[in-house]
Amino acid sequence: MTATLWYWPSIPGRGEFVRLALAAGGIAWHDSARELGAGALIEDMAQDRATPPFAPPYLEIDGLTIAQTGAILAYLGEAHGLAPTDPAGRWFALQLQLTIADVVAEAHDVHHPVGTSLYYEDQIAEAKRAAEGFRAERIPKFLGYFEAVLARTGTGWLTGPRWSHADLSLFHLVQGLHYAFPQRMAAIEGDYPRVTALGHAVATLPELVEYLASDRRIGFNEDGIFRHYPELDAP
Amino acid sequence: MTATLWYWPSIPGRGEFVRLALAAGGIAWHDSARELGAGALIEDMAQDRATPPFAPPYLEIDGLTIAQTGAILAYLGEAHGLAPTDPAGRWFALQLQLTIADVVAEAHDVHHPVGTSLYYEDQIAEAKRAAEGFRAERIPKFLGYFEAVLARTGTGWLTGPRWSHADLSLFHLVQGLHYAFPQRMAAIEGDYPRVTALGHAVATLPELVEYLASDRRIGFNEDGIFRHYPELDAP
Repeated sequence: MTATLWYWPSIPGRGEFVRLALAAGGIAWHDSARELGAGALIEDMAQDRATPPFAPPYLEIDGLTIAQTGAILAYLGEAHGLAPTDPAGRWFALQLQLTIADVVAEAHDVHHPVGTSLYYEDQIAEAKRAAEGFRAERIPKFLGYFEAVLARTGTGWLTGPRWSHADLSLFHLVQGLHYAFPQRMAAIEGDYPRVTALGHAVATLPELVEYLASDRRIGFNEDGIFRHYPELDAP
Repeated sequence: MTATLWYWPSIPGRGEFVRLALAAGGIAWHDSARELGAGALIEDMAQDRATPPFAPPYLEIDGLTIAQTGAILAYLGEAHGLAPTDPAGRWFALQLQLTIADVVAEAHDVHHPVGTSLYYEDQIAEAKRAAEGFRAERIPKFLGYFEAVLARTGTGWLTGPRWSHADLSLFHLVQGLHYAFPQRMAAIEGDYPRVTALGHAVATLPELVEYLASDRRIGFNEDGIFRHYPELDAP
């Protein structure tokens, strides 16, 4: 059965974490708003549903509709083999996924510290202040955490001998940080060799190679979560 | 077996969502940092663990250590009967929980829009701008969503005929919003009668009455997530 993903059609955004998992899991999906337009997504959101989403992304799969990136990925982990099957590993994969979601939210808030409904241009001064702390403290703290997790497993993956949805998401997070903060990431990436190696390993996963080279993968841009505003970056 | 909760000892914070679930689930727990001090928490965080937490809260239970509020509550939901057992209901409970976590993060960022490592006093101007949008758009959007979910179930609870961890968390979220934004909440609470009724229903749950009246429940204060700064509130 083909799954149906609903997410904004012009940005990678939070939808990309789901797309990567679907692609790596060999699950066919319709990227509905890319096929039908953003208007179709807004219409679909208004549908009467037993489990209504607050916001995209949401996924229709196996007769369920699930929203919230972390919940979608935990479901794919459990029902489609994208997470460890032992309880400790399964819950740890969700825990890591939610930690990645925290970084993603912070990376977004750097360019929109005052409010998502205001333009970036109306909060540049605040964004510059927010970016300082994010670059200096938050990026190293989060990457240092994932580096420590990888040092402990020793397998190259976060949750055990095989990749899980958390590894796919960490790859995309690091790509996003490189896009948004190229100077900062160039300055510090040597401190996180295991995180860097994981990025290369995911980028060359046989399950993902075709997807990553396809136009189904949307490039980062300045409407998304990870935006390259040179004034927010520094080594 | 007694569970062990690790969370900062002087604020309700994210730990309170876990405490409510433990109490309502009849699960005995040590609130370790309240018993041993914040120093013990910092020491415990540095322990070598198979599933290390990035930050508190984390819970040791049934031989597992789980961090991230949403993951802890999903675990309690599944393993301790605090969520529906059918797949749709179980995943919906997690989806709702993560949506509540989004509001919680936004409520925090209102008073710390520029950075968590800076004092509130150094970002009051930005906080005032952030609070405007949060009061005018975000609170009504989120409460309207939960109201619609409750209208659809028609049971008084978010996920079906019985309360789940999501209902407990929505109760605490609404209490926090009332504490932080009393004028705004007084002005709009009439628009969300089902959310208000859920709050009363949780507050009088037989499973929770003793906990809620005890000193195990820490009051809101200006070191936590929900802070009452009068300059950030308005009808």
